[in-house]
Amino acid sequence: MTTPATALTGVVPPLLTPLTADGEIDLPSLERLVGHLLEGGVDGIFALGSSGEVAFWDDARRAAVLEAVTGTVAGQVPVIAGVIDMQTDRVIQHVRAAERFDLAGYVVTAPFYAITGPEEIDTHFREVAAVTERPIWAYDIPVCVHTKLPAPLLLRLGADGVITGVKDSSGDDVGFRRLAAGNRAAGSPMTLLTGHEVVVDGAYLAGADGSVPGLGNVDPAGYVRMHRAAQAGDWEQVRTEQDRLAQLFEIVFQPTGKVGPAAGVGAFKTALRELGIFSTNTMARPMSPIEGDAVGRIREILGQTGLLAASQGAGAHA
Amino acid sequence: MTTPATALTGVVPPLLTPLTADGEIDLPSLERLVGHLLEGGVDGIFALGSSGEVAFWDDARRAAVLEAVTGTVAGQVPVIAGVIDMQTDRVIQHVRAAERFDLAGYVVTAPFYAITGPEEIDTHFREVAAVTERPIWAYDIPVCVHTKLPAPLLLRLGADGVITGVKDSSGDDVGFRRLAAGNRAAGSPMTLLTGHEVVVDGAYLAGADGSVPGLGNVDPAGYVRMHRAAQAGDWEQVRTEQDRLAQLFEIVFQPTGKVGPAAGVGAFKTALRELGIFSTNTMARPMSPIEGDAVGRIREILGQTGLLAASQGAGAHA
Amino acid sequence: MTTPATALTGVVPPLLTPLTADGEIDLPSLERLVGHLLEGGVDGIFALGSSGEVAFWDDARRAAVLEAVTGTVAGQVPVIAGVIDMQTDRVIQHVRAAERFDLAGYVVTAPFYAITGPEEIDTHFREVAAVTERPIWAYDIPVCVHTKLPAPLLLRLGADGVITGVKDSSGDDVGFRRLAAGNRAAGSPMTLLTGHEVVVDGAYLAGADGSVPGLGNVDPAGYVRMHRAAQAGDWEQVRTEQDRLAQLFEIVFQPTGKVGPAAGVGAFKTALRELGIFSTNTMARPMSPIEGDAVGRIREILGQTGLLAASQGAGAHA
Amino acid sequence: MTTPATALTGVVPPLLTPLTADGEIDLPSLERLVGHLLEGGVDGIFALGSSGEVAFWDDARRAAVLEAVTGTVAGQVPVIAGVIDMQTDRVIQHVRAAERFDLAGYVVTAPFYAITGPEEIDTHFREVAAVTERPIWAYDIPVCVHTKLPAPLLLRLGADGVITGVKDSSGDDVGFRRLAAGNRAAGSPMTLLTGHEVVVDGAYLAGADGSVPGLGNVDPAGYVRMHRAAQAGDWEQVRTEQDRLAQLFEIVFQPTGKVGPAAGVGAFKTALRELGIFSTNTMARPMSPIEGDAVGRIREILGQTGLLAASQGAGAHA
Repeated sequence: MTTPATALTGVVPPLLTPLTADGEIDLPSLERLVGHLLEGGVDGIFALGSSGEVAFWDDARRAAVLEAVTGTVAGQVPVIAGVIDMQTDRVIQHVRAAERFDLAGYVVTAPFYAITGPEEIDTHFREVAAVTERPIWAYDIPVCVHTKLPAPLLLRLGADGVITGVKDSSGDDVGFRRLAAGNRAAGSPMTLLTGHEVVVDGAYLAGADGSVPGLGNVDPAGYVRMHRAAQAGDWEQVRTEQDRLAQLFEIVFQPTGKVGPAAGVGAFKTALRELGIFSTNTMARPMSPIEGDAVGRIREILGQTGLLAASQGAGAHA
Repeated sequence: MTTPATALTGVVPPLLTPLTADGEIDLPSLERLVGHLLEGGVDGIFALGSSGEVAFWDDARRAAVLEAVTGTVAGQVPVIAGVIDMQTDRVIQHVRAAERFDLAGYVVTAPFYAITGPEEIDTHFREVAAVTERPIWAYDIPVCVHTKLPAPLLLRLGADGVITGVKDSSGDDVGFRRLAAGNRAAGSPMTLLTGHEVVVDGAYLAGADGSVPGLGNVDPAGYVRMHRAAQAGDWEQVRTEQDRLAQLFEIVFQPTGKVGPAAGVGAFKTALRELGIFSTNTMARPMSPIEGDAVGRIREILGQTGLLAASQGAGAHA
Repeated sequence: MTTPATALTGVVPPLLTPLTADGEIDLPSLERLVGHLLEGGVDGIFALGSSGEVAFWDDARRAAVLEAVTGTVAGQVPVIAGVIDMQTDRVIQHVRAAERFDLAGYVVTAPFYAITGPEEIDTHFREVAAVTERPIWAYDIPVCVHTKLPAPLLLRLGADGVITGVKDSSGDDVGFRRLAAGNRAAGSPMTLLTGHEVVVDGAYLAGADGSVPGLGNVDPAGYVRMHRAAQAGDWEQVRTEQDRLAQLFEIVFQPTGKVGPAAGVGAFKTALRELGIFSTNTMARPMSPIEGDAVGRIREILGQTGLLAASQGAGAHA
Repeated sequence: MTTPATALTGVVPPLLTPLTADGEIDLPSLERLVGHLLEGGVDGIFALGSSGEVAFWDDARRAAVLEAVTGTVAGQVPVIAGVIDMQTDRVIQHVRAAERFDLAGYVVTAPFYAITGPEEIDTHFREVAAVTERPIWAYDIPVCVHTKLPAPLLLRLGADGVITGVKDSSGDDVGFRRLAAGNRAAGSPMTLLTGHEVVVDGAYLAGADGSVPGLGNVDPAGYVRMHRAAQAGDWEQVRTEQDRLAQLFEIVFQPTGKVGPAAGVGAFKTALRELGIFSTNTMARPMSPIEGDAVGRIREILGQTGLLAASQGAGAHA
């Protein structure tokens, strides 16, 4: 895990966006969440990622989120921001709108909606990087953009200084190891973060420099403990934490009839409400929040994994 | 093909966006293209569709395109506009920005980037429709959004007056026939247009009310002749036109090493340049235009299909 | 539709395999089915296709099916047989086992299970063709083998005399038109049959020489009328028949909780039982037959499409 | 890693099938390969898996392979055999043909070619298990069969004693951890082996009981060292071995224009030829062997990973 002194490594949760019951940004909940993460020891915060419901916000809401997050974090840890959109000019539009905020870098996906080939993807990253002094992270998330960023492309962009790192949410653990090996062979120009909450331990063995766990909103301290244990080479402790966090991750499988962020982010928001950190579990439209029996099952899992005592959390939304 | 008197049927090409060599909207070329379509007899124009490179434009460019197109068309035929974006709030943002233009309706896809289920898709269309008086067209284009709009959902939205029609680019001819049958059984509340240039004849047999052919930018008169023949029940003529247009469509397979709109829209733009209608075949970034041998092969096909005489077209870009 | 005098064109249903309640081949039902098809005027019969549940039979059962079918058909129309298996040597094994039966050709898919590229697919067809004097049909069925046979490959195999025709079940109507155009341009060395029951009309416009409709087991006369009308250029009649057959095809959507052949072939078998032609609707294991409310809905559709009078069919399985 | 005393755990390579230049089983090479594996310390051998080219062999060849392998292994370690085929009856046919050989169990995939749902898959495993006293392993390999075996199904089959273990080649590391957690929670009725050569270390952390590495044909001793280190809790050693084996795995990316087993198994066979263990790198038809520059690059990687000295291996195929 040799990385530049200034590089962002460790635990960098993709920040959820708490909403009031009528869909506005819930600032008190956001402050509680940021406090929860900082108290847990996170190394950075990723705003406007998929877990932050970036795809659901219009431009005004994106700006409001960045204003609220950077204001709340207030420089205590670096904040990086997703500039997620379909193609180059639209991504650049988001970069330009975000330059006024105190950000440590931008997170950029492959182009989507219109099919693009390797040459266009390469051009895309270079043109976005050219409009800002800030570092660019490549966000490999084929489940959303339906393109896998190939390791040779990422390695070339890293070697050329176009990107500073990769957030890997590809689910391709074989590809991740190849990427990590190639990066090491090139002198580790990039830092590599994994987005897969339940196999961070294996990613550390493969060479990850940190993680971007959506579940880290719920239990940041657990991910931080796992990271510190990995750095210390205490792999039994790494595995023990990971197994508990994998058990906690079962909350996302409790809703019935929901898919994608309505299930995953919805479960995280519900858990945070049950923990007394969020006031509601409201989702961005067109999604509806988790209700019914699934809430009880989520509470049960929070209890089994040590996050919720039997008597706890009821006050927040009573 | 029983449809409301005011419904948009027939040939409605998805308008290409001609660019100057330095990437600005090329107004003289746009005027020539609109003239070419109107002279060909088209029944309407679809601006900011996939063929119009909508995914590549930032908001300012989208507005500029709508301003240029509605100004050039000047009410001679109805213009509908794509309001393509990831999720509900972003689509609504585009609708609001477009309300000041003279448009006959909006074209809306399923949500994308974040995975959504049937309930969310239903909500999505209803919430977008609620913010405008203008008709909404559902745009079924799984190759871009990676969700197929199910026939029962479309039929329900049609019956409820949420959508006025469907532009089908799903490539699912079996599903299209089921949709057409269901629409007829419901009293034909919707008009159904197919986006697949080379099988419009079969779609007419199945019950299509018209077509939205990207290739119709190149040969609008051919698609109009086919439509008139279908209305007259002259199926041999329908087939003859379709076979010729399918031959013309081979231009999109001439570029090597290009995929998606860089190949398809790129070929249409190149053909229009060779026909003297466009000044360049410039593409939106990060795409590059078609060059080299493919241009000659495209000219050859234009000649074989009767669109280009041997001596023609050289002047426009000499 | 210029084809060699000896070529198999027209309606060639993929024969279902009727079973007794305990899973044996039901010869009386098979004889009734063959009689039903011949009475309907079919031009040939395709045994051991996907609709014949070929994937479910061990080698002894395959031989028993071919023996029963060729014995029952007894030369009244040509019979072609699927030799469906994973890779070259296994397919050749099936060819050799079938040479003793009175067959007019073999139907061969792309290799499957192990991923193979274009060169291997080309070799595969050539090596299978080399072991028999009988004609080979390429069976393009990506939903089963997860490879689409590319048009240039098929055209090359056709030009080289390796294959005599294509049974297209790819669902790619755009690709089918390209194939038909390429075949015509090459002098029509191949005959092209479509397997998509509900869009045969469009396939005829595109250049199909016939159809291989699973639904043709239920209503062979309807498909034959459609074919004759297409040959006569009576497209309104073509469309009317196709619309009725598409309505009949709705039987496959009636079962709940079933996918693939358990739904499709299951519905065909259930319909044939209700029509008094099959004694049971038993499926090959591990599939279970359609039961419950779906049976009533299938009967209703049979009534609506003119195949079943209110009082009919009860005797066969009472 | 609590498992029944009799369970097969540890390193169980999927045995390659060496061929002579004219495509026959190469017994001397097979003996050398088995010797190489036993000398490396493997815990078992998996014959007729995907790496053994099972899909390419007709029934006679399958029997010949089992005869040769069990004869050569001669009880020194347990041998399990793939009974890979499309649907239940065909799989049972292979089981029955294999009962006469000295085998410790059978490996069974989900049904394929015809689409089947969860109920059919459950029935499939139960019906296959019912015809033999020997243990059944579920083989989760969606890249070949296009169905992912869901963890709840596997856990149920394990709890019911239908299957004794899972060979996971799904590439779904998140799903594998869920499976391992569920298996532990149920008292570990199953043993879980991973098939992904380059991320075995992460699988061990997640709870794997062993591995089935195709690459283990080339370097069995490396996989055995990794397994022993994992059992000893020496994770730095685990990682070091895995990183070297991942580097070795790069041999499969050296061929150009080849996909699937023609690349992967082809590279393994080529490496074993260069190591002097195989006489040829001949592949089952329709595949062709790796030739040209790729062979040199494979030799180079064998050298870099310590398997081949500069002067070694030339004799075997000179």
